Amino acid sequence: MSDQIKRVVLAYSGGLDTSVILKWLQINYRCEVVTFTADLGQGEELEPARAKALNAGVKPEHIFIDDVREEFVRDYVFPMMRANALYEGLYLLGTSIARPLIAKRQIEIAQQVGADAVAHGATGKGNDQVRFELSYYALQPDIKVIAPWREWDLTSRTRLIEWAEQHQIMVPKDKRGEAPFSTDANMLHTSSEGKVLEDPWEEVPDYVYSRTVNPEDAPDTPEYITVDFERGDGVALNDRKMSPATLLEALNELGRKHGIGRLDLVENRFVGMKSRGMYETPGGAIYHLAHRGIEQLTLDRGAAHLKDELMPRYAELIYNGFWFSPEREMLQAAIDHSQEKVTGTVRLKLYKGNVIVVGRKSPYSLYSEKVVTFEDDAGAYDQRDAAGFIKLNALRLRLLGRRDR
Amino acid sequence: MSDQIKRVVLAYSGGLDTSVILKWLQINYRCEVVTFTADLGQGEELEPARAKALNAGVKPEHIFIDDVREEFVRDYVFPMMRANALYEGLYLLGTSIARPLIAKRQIEIAQQVGADAVAHGATGKGNDQVRFELSYYALQPDIKVIAPWREWDLTSRTRLIEWAEQHQIMVPKDKRGEAPFSTDANMLHTSSEGKVLEDPWEEVPDYVYSRTVNPEDAPDTPEYITVDFERGDGVALNDRKMSPATLLEALNELGRKHGIGRLDLVENRFVGMKSRGMYETPGGAIYHLAHRGIEQLTLDRGAAHLKDELMPRYAELIYNGFWFSPEREMLQAAIDHSQEKVTGTVRLKLYKGNVIVVGRKSPYSLYSEKVVTFEDDAGAYDQRDAAGFIKLNALRLRLLGRRDR
Amino acid sequence: MSDQIKRVVLAYSGGLDTSVILKWLQINYRCEVVTFTADLGQGEELEPARAKALNAGVKPEHIFIDDVREEFVRDYVFPMMRANALYEGLYLLGTSIARPLIAKRQIEIAQQVGADAVAHGATGKGNDQVRFELSYYALQPDIKVIAPWREWDLTSRTRLIEWAEQHQIMVPKDKRGEAPFSTDANMLHTSSEGKVLEDPWEEVPDYVYSRTVNPEDAPDTPEYITVDFERGDGVALNDRKMSPATLLEALNELGRKHGIGRLDLVENRFVGMKSRGMYETPGGAIYHLAHRGIEQLTLDRGAAHLKDELMPRYAELIYNGFWFSPEREMLQAAIDHSQEKVTGTVRLKLYKGNVIVVGRKSPYSLYSEKVVTFEDDAGAYDQRDAAGFIKLNALRLRLLGRRDR
Amino acid sequence: MSDQIKRVVLAYSGGLDTSVILKWLQINYRCEVVTFTADLGQGEELEPARAKALNAGVKPEHIFIDDVREEFVRDYVFPMMRANALYEGLYLLGTSIARPLIAKRQIEIAQQVGADAVAHGATGKGNDQVRFELSYYALQPDIKVIAPWREWDLTSRTRLIEWAEQHQIMVPKDKRGEAPFSTDANMLHTSSEGKVLEDPWEEVPDYVYSRTVNPEDAPDTPEYITVDFERGDGVALNDRKMSPATLLEALNELGRKHGIGRLDLVENRFVGMKSRGMYETPGGAIYHLAHRGIEQLTLDRGAAHLKDELMPRYAELIYNGFWFSPEREMLQAAIDHSQEKVTGTVRLKLYKGNVIVVGRKSPYSLYSEKVVTFEDDAGAYDQRDAAGFIKLNALRLRLLGRRDR
Repeated sequence: MSDQIKRVVLAYSGGLDTSVILKWLQINYRCEVVTFTADLGQGEELEPARAKALNAGVKPEHIFIDDVREEFVRDYVFPMMRANALYEGLYLLGTSIARPLIAKRQIEIAQQVGADAVAHGATGKGNDQVRFELSYYALQPDIKVIAPWREWDLTSRTRLIEWAEQHQIMVPKDKRGEAPFSTDANMLHTSSEGKVLEDPWEEVPDYVYSRTVNPEDAPDTPEYITVDFERGDGVALNDRKMSPATLLEALNELGRKHGIGRLDLVENRFVGMKSRGMYETPGGAIYHLAHRGIEQLTLDRGAAHLKDELMPRYAELIYNGFWFSPEREMLQAAIDHSQEKVTGTVRLKLYKGNVIVVGRKSPYSLYSEKVVTFEDDAGAYDQRDAAGFIKLNALRLRLLGRRDR
Repeated sequence: MSDQIKRVVLAYSGGLDTSVILKWLQINYRCEVVTFTADLGQGEELEPARAKALNAGVKPEHIFIDDVREEFVRDYVFPMMRANALYEGLYLLGTSIARPLIAKRQIEIAQQVGADAVAHGATGKGNDQVRFELSYYALQPDIKVIAPWREWDLTSRTRLIEWAEQHQIMVPKDKRGEAPFSTDANMLHTSSEGKVLEDPWEEVPDYVYSRTVNPEDAPDTPEYITVDFERGDGVALNDRKMSPATLLEALNELGRKHGIGRLDLVENRFVGMKSRGMYETPGGAIYHLAHRGIEQLTLDRGAAHLKDELMPRYAELIYNGFWFSPEREMLQAAIDHSQEKVTGTVRLKLYKGNVIVVGRKSPYSLYSEKVVTFEDDAGAYDQRDAAGFIKLNALRLRLLGRRDR
Repeated sequence: MSDQIKRVVLAYSGGLDTSVILKWLQINYRCEVVTFTADLGQGEELEPARAKALNAGVKPEHIFIDDVREEFVRDYVFPMMRANALYEGLYLLGTSIARPLIAKRQIEIAQQVGADAVAHGATGKGNDQVRFELSYYALQPDIKVIAPWREWDLTSRTRLIEWAEQHQIMVPKDKRGEAPFSTDANMLHTSSEGKVLEDPWEEVPDYVYSRTVNPEDAPDTPEYITVDFERGDGVALNDRKMSPATLLEALNELGRKHGIGRLDLVENRFVGMKSRGMYETPGGAIYHLAHRGIEQLTLDRGAAHLKDELMPRYAELIYNGFWFSPEREMLQAAIDHSQEKVTGTVRLKLYKGNVIVVGRKSPYSLYSEKVVTFEDDAGAYDQRDAAGFIKLNALRLRLLGRRDR
Repeated sequence: MSDQIKRVVLAYSGGLDTSVILKWLQINYRCEVVTFTADLGQGEELEPARAKALNAGVKPEHIFIDDVREEFVRDYVFPMMRANALYEGLYLLGTSIARPLIAKRQIEIAQQVGADAVAHGATGKGNDQVRFELSYYALQPDIKVIAPWREWDLTSRTRLIEWAEQHQIMVPKDKRGEAPFSTDANMLHTSSEGKVLEDPWEEVPDYVYSRTVNPEDAPDTPEYITVDFERGDGVALNDRKMSPATLLEALNELGRKHGIGRLDLVENRFVGMKSRGMYETPGGAIYHLAHRGIEQLTLDRGAAHLKDELMPRYAELIYNGFWFSPEREMLQAAIDHSQEKVTGTVRLKLYKGNVIVVGRKSPYSLYSEKVVTFEDDAGAYDQRDAAGFIKLNALRLRLLGRRDR
């Protein structure tokens, strides 16, 4: 708590924890707090955050509540989806991808209001602190960063609540006890971890799920949909053009209804430990497979395989918080270069947790009647060519076999 | 048809196509044909192949019918599954992985009976010809290879059947017309392609599926199972120890019942074209996710991420037919090295096409109560360490930011 | 020789071999031949090619002699050098990188003159046939390709010369015997292979070298030079601005004088065999190290390491002839993205075969006084941060150690 | 300085810095110090370290002076060389590779004498602290680590010397002033950095070099040598069998004489900053190229290219201190698998800084007369095969070209 801080931009949800942080910053740093509340589609009312911030003494002009949903989906979720990114083979990176955007807006606001610091409410054991702070530093190298959870002594829930009450912060009744797990939500996903989820042998209890129905309770009749893509990004659902956020929202609703996108995962955090989380990514799960579906038709093998090989690294960079890094941008440049003709329509069947690609078509298909004709007529494919192809591919193996077998 | 062939080992199923090939080889090459029929768990009776071969004039001692199911699962499927191999993100490589084993047995038999050639029934447009022949050449560099489909003029179904009838080969009634699609099957999967599947916009008709019930017809009640792993390989189902093939067979039955492991895919063939296939891998799909589940608990992050990065290359090698290559073996050495402690139990829920890992435990867990205690007590995890960790990870980004932003 | 060819664009050097091909095409295909002779800086007079072509009956308007030196260096050599490309760790890809340009010009000319075919003089055992033809097909998929060396029966030198004499083609006296080795040359390098070089245990004889002095005969006094880079490309030598080709030419002269850029290599050809070659890349060797030198100062670690990991694949693609492929272009997009600030000056010492980077400076240096000050003053580097950094990097290893050691 | 330490094993060179550390540990931690002095072939007398340690009150049975030269070369340098490891394209990792061995011996001694802590003399800005400590923690997860340079306040040379004099530590005359640069040495290399080397535009002054003559002063006559390899490791020089350390020592002498292995580098440290260093790796530079030479002849392309692609990651792991990590071990398993037939002889020419491979031969050559004969006689290479090979490799590019061009 050494450095003199004058004004700090806090990532503020309006909830108990960040309300405590707001007050704690005012007291401990004797500094002015500016609040930033982002509407990332987490599905909560944000206006109450304004009243609470005002109440805590934040100046009206220092309360920022922004709807960043379109920016989130257009500039973060979709670019990531172009890569078919999955962390550790399974996780759609829903939390990871929101952090850089929040951090970027905090830095923009800091520059706008002349703040010298930023603060966040992520704990000291998780990945989010890293994602926030790497983004802050990349975008404004000399910014001061305050991470209250690494600094203060409010290490138990009881102490936090005591402190809140001592400082006239309203504690909602349902926050009095220990929460059975903690969550993060945005338009792409909801994650849950901790407490009841900590034993990786125990099945995730049903009440933890909030974004999707249980597949067993989903409709007994499948639903067919189409998703249109242009240059690698989704643009329409069932032939209706939609903005990025509108599309994702509509897919979320479909996913919720059909019990799609649940994931129970033990993952490796960047800070070195394993954790167990439960993720719900209803629309994202549909979108991911739809994107793969349209790529199957429109991407050349060389491009597709290179993408598959680069993907784990790309996903790791996002997971670890390196969105604003040269290497992520280089990989993005390569990926984006491949998407120019990733245009067309994918037909999917949704049924009780299943997302099944059942059809794809494209004006830029590399698989088409025309191609089939090409193959037969113009002699583009002469079966005898296969003999030479195999012979030369085998040559080095034969030389080896001569030597070794 | 230049070279003088004396004796050829044919991969012989007993079906119409390979029966035609058998005769065609005898006529065109005036050589002795040795038949090899492998029981890979494809679920067909193999003894009829013996009678047919005898009938075609093959010497009794030149008819080989081998049950290679255990070898197949133990030495091919399981090693591949250790890598979590998926071709183009989705395909479990069911056909690809069987070819090297068939080829290897053909070569062994060739050496045993003094044959100078081998032959297979794969067509000139597909991947299987490559997989067979690269394996042949790797294992016996100077073997002669006959690929009738690339040589003969029986290019239409009608001509093939005419030729068969001219040569007293029995044509089953159901083979008289054009088959609506072609299939390949072994214990790991059944693949279907061609004809009714050729338009990638059209949904795969229900009658194409043979190994799994439609998820919509699967039981309404989920079924929970456990799979035990030792050193990366499955060893038990629901606490009952099983051999590799027995385990896979049992998982197949479970997968069939619950409509698991269907895949509709447009893929890139090694020979340069796109094709559309439908795959059913009921047990393999369960096993794949179970293996990932146990790895989540027992693999270190460094090992896990390296595996994820190497996987696409590994899968490509198998798909392209390079099982018997130094680079596949090198990757296998790296992968196998990682599996020593991949031991424990995974609990899964099977429900209408879904395979859901709901629990995992292991004596070698890197996530455990003990570890949690480690973190708190022994000071192994001091939240303040995170500050330094982030600061040094951020340093290069700050230097960059200073320069560029 | 089946297809009817009307007009073919031949890559024509004017030498004996391509003169034979010219005539052979006229006779065997009864088609019109269009000649394309590229000045790639190979250091030969090209005008004699015009006279020879005229003499062989090529129409004046069908004789193309182009100086493509600037295009070669600017659009092929420099982009490749941005990647620090080395094939098999050592080879600067001098032959490989020229082929796509020649092929591209042939296709352009074919389109201009309405030709339906292209032809080249590369043999059937080498890589160049692949590089030419993959480029042809990528740029004009339905072009017909004639590769006389794979078709004709002039398989020995003697027969070729006999045929030439029978057809009134002038055979230079020094071509009457067998050449002791064969060469390819362009502004970037000269390669030699075959005959006297075929035993990889035998040292390359001195007379094979043509582009560089023997290091032992190079000046006894080192020479210092500077090379300036802008956005990843060389722009000046010793403070004198130069065009790409002029710069490479000047570096070639320096390299020649100081015995720089010789390489004796046994390499793996794409067609499956090993070959032994000798390469002289005088200017390229200097440029390669100079580029690495300026990157050391201006590239972030994340970008630099990603480039290093992608490089072998990139080099392999160029070697194998996939310049005009989506995956090469994707990698190029990633690489180019990294070069925006690769601007500055490198100082090098040239001495008897050695190229030694002795200094680098840049307005975009990430290593600078300012940075050093940054580190000390602003507390950007607190040594105590290192403790946390190490602790969290060690955490997973400690958990592993607990389990395993 | 919180935790109670009873006994600490210090990596002790006997020099001023570690002598100060020894005393400082005794005073500040009131603990028993055990010294470990390793003979890594750094070329210093080690026995004086014993007298100094005794003098400082270390018990005789707590003074460990070990000759680990053979272990160093056999178990660390050679395995790394099998990978052809170069960090950032150029650096042979001489310092990095010694740290894990020192750390391992410290941990072994700690277990032997019942010490609860280890200490090293690396500073808080460098890589070595990371390498030491990651190795400590991997090998004994609960060890306590003391890094005096990150803890104490002896932050300037003057203060260190004052403190030394106050505590009766002998300060050699040549240590009174500021050293113009700092060095690290072992049998593989000597590194120098700091002070006079800090401006990357300034050429490294001649007096910094200690292990090699200036190439300009090297003999005017080249020297030819042969190095024999067995299974990827060097076993003989000029036909004389040698142990690993003896071989490296002999190559060092040759390298020194011919001015080989100097490198001036600006590199990226793991802790996030760039630094400039000068390295001399005389024998290592020869060995590295010799190993590549024998691999050229004996490694299959698939293995060779996979190795090249894995190498940057492998080198980074060693540079960053992850020798004792599962991922380094996995890569080693892959690399070692490739070396079984890397046996044979390489002939090299050494001349004024140049190492030139001029010949290679091997009983396991994949390039040989036999192979050439193979190609011609047995029809292993039919030039017409190349046509099919090219056609199928081109197919996807043609389909693309049809669509895009």
